[in-house]
Amino acid sequence: MQLSTLKDLLVDELKDIYSAEQQITKALPQMAQKAHSPELKKAFEDHLRQTENHIQRLDQVFQKLGQAPTGKFCKGMDGLLKEGQEMMQERADPDVLDAAMISAAQRVEHYEIAAYGTVRTYANELGDGDIQRLLQQTLDEEGDTDKKLTRIAESKVNQQAAKAA
Amino acid sequence: MQLSTLKDLLVDELKDIYSAEQQITKALPQMAQKAHSPELKKAFEDHLRQTENHIQRLDQVFQKLGQAPTGKFCKGMDGLLKEGQEMMQERADPDVLDAAMISAAQRVEHYEIAAYGTVRTYANELGDGDIQRLLQQTLDEEGDTDKKLTRIAESKVNQQAAKAA
Repeated sequence: MQLSTLKDLLVDELKDIYSAEQQITKALPQMAQKAHSPELKKAFEDHLRQTENHIQRLDQVFQKLGQAPTGKFCKGMDGLLKEGQEMMQERADPDVLDAAMISAAQRVEHYEIAAYGTVRTYANELGDGDIQRLLQQTLDEEGDTDKKLTRIAESKVNQQAAKAA
Repeated sequence: MQLSTLKDLLVDELKDIYSAEQQITKALPQMAQKAHSPELKKAFEDHLRQTENHIQRLDQVFQKLGQAPTGKFCKGMDGLLKEGQEMMQERADPDVLDAAMISAAQRVEHYEIAAYGTVRTYANELGDGDIQRLLQQTLDEEGDTDKKLTRIAESKVNQQAAKAA
């Protein structure tokens, strides 16, 4: 049986998240390049560095579990990023495109909030405090990134986009 | 230009959400059927009815905007549901499978929370109070469903799954 225990499911989902984070590192440079607002560009660049750190944290988790992070391709993140790519190819006003990219990025952040929240809870259920703390750190950072994107959208980008003729 | 204004983006994203909700109505009956916990089965059945209501609310929004809801296929939701389907096909202990289905469903809920949060904010920015209120109602219900799934997971399903040998 592939998923006999909650630990099997924890490992399975961590592999999914590992693949998701790898996919995100490939998408963020293009998003930073396309961003019109300097603040948004910086937010994407900062999040790329943060994502690389999240991958290192996952490497630590896999080491503690005595497992390899490979073997799974995250179809959920693939769909989210394809949707974002499709949108970035539409002919758009630069401010409206910034708003659209924030929207796509927040879908990605929410995927990660759901995913890290789940594995953090499994680690807690399995009594593994070290792994729980590592996953909680990343979960907190994903939540902060989501809030930062909301701030950039509400304080500036959406207002600029609303003025687009 | 396809996305000249914030209103263009609002309509574009509403079409994406409309497609997402349609896809969810097709996935939920299978999830309800596969659920082992009666509480989880009921949660999926309740959410199907709620999703049908969300579609009706979107129909009202499109009517107010004088637009048709068609013409977009939500690749993000397609990816999320494909990931869930893949997981439901793994050989699994029934309690572990319940935990896995909650995890997949929470990724779906978080997609919707991000998506409805965004269009609700655009409607606010564009000064359309009626549309904002309709979208806020659905956003609140998606948030409640996510919390309900967390409760089912933490109070019962994960504990059962942690006992699986």
